Amino acid sequence: MKETNIYETDELVSQYCDFQYGDEYFGVMNFAKACAQKAIEYSKSTRQKRALDLGCATGRASFELARSFDHVDGIDYSQAFIDAAAELQKNGRIGYAQNDEGAIKKRKKVSINDSGFWEAGSKVHFSQGDACALVPEFTQYDLIMATNLIDRLYQPQLFLKNIHERINEKGILVLTSPYTWKEEYTAKEFWVGGYVDENGREVSTLEGLTKLLEANFELIATQNVPFVIRETARKFQHTISQMSVWKKR
Amino acid sequence: MKETNIYETDELVSQYCDFQYGDEYFGVMNFAKACAQKAIEYSKSTRQKRALDLGCATGRASFELARSFDHVDGIDYSQAFIDAAAELQKNGRIGYAQNDEGAIKKRKKVSINDSGFWEAGSKVHFSQGDACALVPEFTQYDLIMATNLIDRLYQPQLFLKNIHERINEKGILVLTSPYTWKEEYTAKEFWVGGYVDENGREVSTLEGLTKLLEANFELIATQNVPFVIRETARKFQHTISQMSVWKKR
Repeated sequence: MKETNIYETDELVSQYCDFQYGDEYFGVMNFAKACAQKAIEYSKSTRQKRALDLGCATGRASFELARSFDHVDGIDYSQAFIDAAAELQKNGRIGYAQNDEGAIKKRKKVSINDSGFWEAGSKVHFSQGDACALVPEFTQYDLIMATNLIDRLYQPQLFLKNIHERINEKGILVLTSPYTWKEEYTAKEFWVGGYVDENGREVSTLEGLTKLLEANFELIATQNVPFVIRETARKFQHTISQMSVWKKR
Repeated sequence: MKETNIYETDELVSQYCDFQYGDEYFGVMNFAKACAQKAIEYSKSTRQKRALDLGCATGRASFELARSFDHVDGIDYSQAFIDAAAELQKNGRIGYAQNDEGAIKKRKKVSINDSGFWEAGSKVHFSQGDACALVPEFTQYDLIMATNLIDRLYQPQLFLKNIHERINEKGILVLTSPYTWKEEYTAKEFWVGGYVDENGREVSTLEGLTKLLEANFELIATQNVPFVIRETARKFQHTISQMSVWKKR
């Protein structure tokens, strides 16, 4: 098994390797693992054959889902993320550079060879793709999970309106997001919520999600799921995302 | 007392009003208050007449220092921060807009009328100024405190080399920083640390500080001081700054 450090130049890939496979900070559980565990739990009442992890980044949640599902598709818009996930799948390990202080970086390696999920990894298929324009093959899922995705899509409403077509009857859709809507990612007319409407009423994202999804889904649970992303040895993003769980009618 | 919400347009002023006068998050103590309390404690062995709060932002630590010091100068590079601090000093209250979700904001008011530090506030003098080019009048201090300042200066080395001229004998210099060096704020040649030198050796910022300050100061303590800055209802910066305390020889 060849060991590479090819991602040292890509700061975001390194940050996400750390986020998905590295240490925990401030006592907050690994987010990808926590989300996958919750999604597995919420989908227990249905079949657990096919799962889709949309916005899978470096793949941790996809691997975790493969502990319970027969087949998992992990899709991300970033080819660099998919390359990292695929390298972990192939070699069971990856090297990356962790920002420490200023320009000082620490070489880190994570190995998943000893983890329960590495064997399960063969059930995962990673590919680059656009959540707003998925090819037709990605369909018939018992679970679709999209963690911290919707507020980074250019067309989240389109995505949400059509996602039911890819989920089996009684299947589960798990969304998590801190609802950090920004015009640099999503034109304001496409925000799902987080705006004041023409009557001066505040529309929350959960309300917007409900409007877009209720024709095809029942909202069965919401809960807060915290996560911490390490930027340097001393600086962290500490965020409380909202998980909403939807069951297809 | 007129109540204004003039800072609604300035997101950073609102964020710092919240940081310095608003709620605490994740159980982390108000940072300006914590730093001022520690600085007062560390300066107990010397006179506590004149203090300088460099990079005072909206002024909370300046007010806190005035509980113990006879005169406090609060200086910030941002006129908008100084205006907010001065308004709090004059009216005892200020209104600002807290980012909630997307474009949804919550109107917040903070009042310091009932706080012990409002009366002390008359001992504070706020003014706009450049820490790297202070006018000569700002001198003869028993304490100079610069919280989260050095890694945002364009010439931190110059600042550190000369700061002893403004401190009385046996006076105290308190620095805090997460050492988040970025070329957008400080040209790399002026970084105090956080770089790899020409021999391939990593130079930490504490080491760089020591080199710049040791001719005139003794390092008497270091400790970690955490802070949390709220960006939205769900997104926070959670940072562990390092406080270093220097006693003038």
